[in-house]
Amino acid sequence: MTEKNIPDIVVSRLPVYLQTLQLLKKEGKTITSSQELGEKSGITAAQVRKDLSFFGEFGKQGSGYNIDFLTEKILAILKLDRVWDVALVGIGDLGHAIARYPGFAERGFNIRFIFDSDPKKIGIKVGNHEVQSMDNMVEVIRGAGIRVAMITVPSHAAQTVADLLIEAGVKAILNYAPVPLIVPDGVRVETVSPIIQMEHMTYYL
Amino acid sequence: MTEKNIPDIVVSRLPVYLQTLQLLKKEGKTITSSQELGEKSGITAAQVRKDLSFFGEFGKQGSGYNIDFLTEKILAILKLDRVWDVALVGIGDLGHAIARYPGFAERGFNIRFIFDSDPKKIGIKVGNHEVQSMDNMVEVIRGAGIRVAMITVPSHAAQTVADLLIEAGVKAILNYAPVPLIVPDGVRVETVSPIIQMEHMTYYL
Repeated sequence: MTEKNIPDIVVSRLPVYLQTLQLLKKEGKTITSSQELGEKSGITAAQVRKDLSFFGEFGKQGSGYNIDFLTEKILAILKLDRVWDVALVGIGDLGHAIARYPGFAERGFNIRFIFDSDPKKIGIKVGNHEVQSMDNMVEVIRGAGIRVAMITVPSHAAQTVADLLIEAGVKAILNYAPVPLIVPDGVRVETVSPIIQMEHMTYYL
Repeated sequence: MTEKNIPDIVVSRLPVYLQTLQLLKKEGKTITSSQELGEKSGITAAQVRKDLSFFGEFGKQGSGYNIDFLTEKILAILKLDRVWDVALVGIGDLGHAIARYPGFAERGFNIRFIFDSDPKKIGIKVGNHEVQSMDNMVEVIRGAGIRVAMITVPSHAAQTVADLLIEAGVKAILNYAPVPLIVPDGVRVETVSPIIQMEHMTYYL
């Protein structure tokens, strides 16, 4: 299996297949087809087969995919067969909701540190974590070898925080601030943009 | 200006341009170029020009775009030149964070009703709203003519809630539950999927 030169759009669909596989498993199924997997993922069966064929042979003609086997394979491809420690920066309402949300930990994203710049928030407990000052953030993150972070600070502070995270060695940033972040090659940003998603829908109303 | 048959991918980029225009305005600018607008939106200048040309002539060769004028035009195209009343369903941690977040209201999305099915939550105040029982949800939403909703309930309840919203006349759903929703033609769903965005990035780590 080579993972070189896989189109990013294909990679972006793997987590969707994973979500659907986990849903099918919850429903008690053990085998699925490209038809079913596609239908429940909102993707055509042909696209499912083509996407998965980039990574190897995961099913047999006519007998479908074993759900556990395919789940394991996709987890390995996406490097989700391990736990990723995550730094969360910004502990407002959204930061609190994320810190308390079990969904990330269930998928292997372990919030290890929480940082904020507000002296009134430093030292407070959120879940199992004590909020730490951003003053030592770069050293703490670098020392722990953390490569994944979430930004939940106000827009005006997001780029500064991103720059510090990158200085600390972070390579993947989930950005909840509604601003585009500029990052160097080798660092990836995904922005969570519910407002942009809303504004996309109103066009059709 | 005809708005028929515009590719959805073009429509999906308009809110991004809007966000960048509002950022440029905040920086004190009054004129921008397709180069600048593209660069700050992560889109090529040629694509910006092509996208905008679907809707008319918004700039003059060599003199760029007037930021206020282009902002107004895009707001009108996306039907964001008005206030949209929104129903929020599910008032856990995330629902609270959304209800208190000023960002949606600033962009014209006015949370008008909050619903939950938990008797312990009904009647509590969140912001200016009293949480209402889901028992009357269909009638209340239909009576108020609301067409936009946000779902922040647990995964297992999301499809049932979506079905009720659609019965009530909702045509656009922002779904925060990490499950795909099945909806009829004429109804649009956008799912906020931070976990899928995270899992997309780990591939590259």
